[in-house]
Amino acid sequence: MEPGREADSGPVIGVFDSGFGGLTVLKALVKRMPGARFAFLGDTARLPYGSKSRRTIARYAAESAQFLANQQGAEFLVIACNTASALALDAIQDAVSVPVLGVIEPGAAAAAASSTARDVLVIATEATVASHAYAAACRERGLRAVEKACPLLVPLVEEGWVNPVDHPVTPEVVRIYLNEALEEARAAGHSPDTLVLGCTHYPLLRAVFERTAPEGMRIIDSAEATAEETARRVGLVAASRAESPAADIRCFATDSVEKFERLGSRFLGLPVGKVELVDLGG
Amino acid sequence: MEPGREADSGPVIGVFDSGFGGLTVLKALVKRMPGARFAFLGDTARLPYGSKSRRTIARYAAESAQFLANQQGAEFLVIACNTASALALDAIQDAVSVPVLGVIEPGAAAAAASSTARDVLVIATEATVASHAYAAACRERGLRAVEKACPLLVPLVEEGWVNPVDHPVTPEVVRIYLNEALEEARAAGHSPDTLVLGCTHYPLLRAVFERTAPEGMRIIDSAEATAEETARRVGLVAASRAESPAADIRCFATDSVEKFERLGSRFLGLPVGKVELVDLGG
Repeated sequence: MEPGREADSGPVIGVFDSGFGGLTVLKALVKRMPGARFAFLGDTARLPYGSKSRRTIARYAAESAQFLANQQGAEFLVIACNTASALALDAIQDAVSVPVLGVIEPGAAAAAASSTARDVLVIATEATVASHAYAAACRERGLRAVEKACPLLVPLVEEGWVNPVDHPVTPEVVRIYLNEALEEARAAGHSPDTLVLGCTHYPLLRAVFERTAPEGMRIIDSAEATAEETARRVGLVAASRAESPAADIRCFATDSVEKFERLGSRFLGLPVGKVELVDLGG
Repeated sequence: MEPGREADSGPVIGVFDSGFGGLTVLKALVKRMPGARFAFLGDTARLPYGSKSRRTIARYAAESAQFLANQQGAEFLVIACNTASALALDAIQDAVSVPVLGVIEPGAAAAAASSTARDVLVIATEATVASHAYAAACRERGLRAVEKACPLLVPLVEEGWVNPVDHPVTPEVVRIYLNEALEEARAAGHSPDTLVLGCTHYPLLRAVFERTAPEGMRIIDSAEATAEETARRVGLVAASRAESPAADIRCFATDSVEKFERLGSRFLGLPVGKVELVDLGG
């Protein structure tokens, strides 16, 4: 049992990302499961995973998962990182003895529940799109997916240009990406009615997507879908919120925590507090 | 002597970057010193250096420099990476026995030769700005510098949105950054007449800067200034071009070479050819 935490204050949920974008998933988890305790690890020393080989990503992600399960006592692991979910979920599951949930399956399941056309658009980073993990997860559920890489959106979010009125460049960029994706979908004979936000940074652009997406298109946030599925599996419900005045969250990072501390609170919607530095080697 | 290269075909210049942005420096070097042979290493497995600690960057950069000097026979090393130049130049010089030149000193020297107002703007990545290496190098030359981080410019270049007519978002973003930088300069009582491009990606945006910079502002490209200084120190001149029909360039990377091969030719202005994978550990 990790010191400073009480034995009777609910299970520890481990949340892992290569950086701090996964804090949007943690935000959704805290909202859904306020009675749980959370340990978040950002493997900031080794990000971005997207430019690395599958073998390297699997090794890094497995080490990170072991830190959360073995050293922080996590009883359930959420992989709040699209790249690791796409390329290393099996390796992570092999490395720890607790259940593991990635962000892609819940996102695809929510898309399947939303789409009546059975056609969806998935926007994500280059690495996630290159893995075609969302397309595969959608196909398993009878959905056709057009995946579109939007490499400018993460830096726009990190720059803080998330308000469509103050920063009109951002809706302009989103409109360009969505138009390209819709053109590609039409050329393939698809009529998408659902947009999947396949990157942990994108929930911060929700106001921009709502303004730029075509009329009637539903927006699926993988973070929310993942929190929903976690709560279902762990068996905790938001009702316990009343007993729990403040979320119990510890944040860890593997290198320079400055950017994490500076930007993290915007992603989490709560102060991230002091980020603790850990050394996983490598 | 490294196999496949003739002993009498000029010195080997080693060029190092954490990624492939430094290919713009290699481009300037090839133009200035066509008779030389070049070995370029992108430490793509461990990029970006900008989010890592000084000690980690120094270790990575030293290992990369040793690969170029000891395994590729480089007789002169160009550190075509602003972060490594800012944070690890001493560590690199200690790790090898050949002369080493970074991009920051030549950039600052060119700015000093250009500015009559003795006030300059330096635009760069967040990591380079946070190091204040350009401000220090400018101060040593009697210049006052306002440094401005422009985190959206690298992704805009990598997205290929470099033509101001086809992609009006890019000049819009550059205009926002330059206006913020000029406001900050004015508030400090500066009147900058020179703009230093302090990032190896920015030469691809030259047409955008020329269109958006205030009338009369001179633009200094650190890549060109570094090539000029390298040629002066190594003692080769462009006149030898006549004898040398094609540049002799070998490119190495430490991980997935796909993005390097796909984008590299745009940066180099020549086909990068086959990128060779090397393992530096870590």
